Amino acid sequence: MTVLDTLVKHLSRLPGVGRKSALRIAYHLLAADEGFTTALAHDIMHLKERVRPCSVCGNYTEADPCDICSDPSRDRTTVCVVEQPQDIAVLETTREYRGLYHALTGVISPIDGIGPEDLTIGKLIERLHSGEVKEVILATNPTVEGDTTALYLVRLLEDRGVAVSRLALGLPVGGDLEYADRLTIARSLRGRTPLSSN
Amino acid sequence: MTVLDTLVKHLSRLPGVGRKSALRIAYHLLAADEGFTTALAHDIMHLKERVRPCSVCGNYTEADPCDICSDPSRDRTTVCVVEQPQDIAVLETTREYRGLYHALTGVISPIDGIGPEDLTIGKLIERLHSGEVKEVILATNPTVEGDTTALYLVRLLEDRGVAVSRLALGLPVGGDLEYADRLTIARSLRGRTPLSSN
Repeated sequence: MTVLDTLVKHLSRLPGVGRKSALRIAYHLLAADEGFTTALAHDIMHLKERVRPCSVCGNYTEADPCDICSDPSRDRTTVCVVEQPQDIAVLETTREYRGLYHALTGVISPIDGIGPEDLTIGKLIERLHSGEVKEVILATNPTVEGDTTALYLVRLLEDRGVAVSRLALGLPVGGDLEYADRLTIARSLRGRTPLSSN
Repeated sequence: MTVLDTLVKHLSRLPGVGRKSALRIAYHLLAADEGFTTALAHDIMHLKERVRPCSVCGNYTEADPCDICSDPSRDRTTVCVVEQPQDIAVLETTREYRGLYHALTGVISPIDGIGPEDLTIGKLIERLHSGEVKEVILATNPTVEGDTTALYLVRLLEDRGVAVSRLALGLPVGGDLEYADRLTIARSLRGRTPLSSN
């Protein structure tokens, strides 16, 4: 097997890259300048070595604790619980939230043999011990597993003196009622926003 | 800039990879096992070092001359001229052609400042000197630049004792007349295949 073949094989294992795209990328690399390919190879090589989960919240970081955990301007009374560290980056793009995060590194999924003990739930409870945290926002995905995990956490966090909330479910901005699914419409009705109190 | 940021920046310069896919790939690599990322980095690093253009036909190869040029079972009387070395791999997947190839490494494109002297046309003429080659098939793309290059080559190859042909233009297999463009239909009419001689 030639280097080109192995490269195509490896590239096509990346998410969103099929055999044809892998070939296209490989040929692009062959024609690219040496500096670019060396830099790319270097990045990939050192990625896992340099980027590690933050020991506090689980966010991907080069410094420990991560930029968010060590930022004194962030609101330390609120913790937003997400499934994966990459969800933190997504929430950060909104610039809507100024609190801290906690990445569970997964969801409860009995079918895949993943129980609460496989997630960083113990660490989350530990973070609440100091009494600084007043609110926990559950930002797991609106899927069966995400819902199960949120439900589990709600029960676990009862009587711990923290308010628990969940991301709102409803129509996506720019969406169209005609194309929304039945469940989303039902949830948007149930969680309707009062506009006037008359 | 962190390694993650630079990696995403570099990945999003690859063809077909936008910022979102680059992020997804980077997170996939972070979660992937060490062996895979090391192998991928290694492939990219050594690709340009090991894979070089064949000194005869310009095909990408690790051995020189390439597998096709040195295969004694190939028909050495026919040379198929393509724009890019990667086009050879595409033609090879058809298993229809058993001759040799010649990659021009580009097309004549005055707007980009690319003239015949920037392509491997001189080398192609040299290959015809031995008199072994009897037919040249022009497989440049059916674009303005590909057509210009083909026309240039037809004129250049006149009176050199070789037959010159071009890939057929017409409807793609599985295509639909309704969705074919005007030019393609016109070319498929002009190049219609006789089925009976009555």
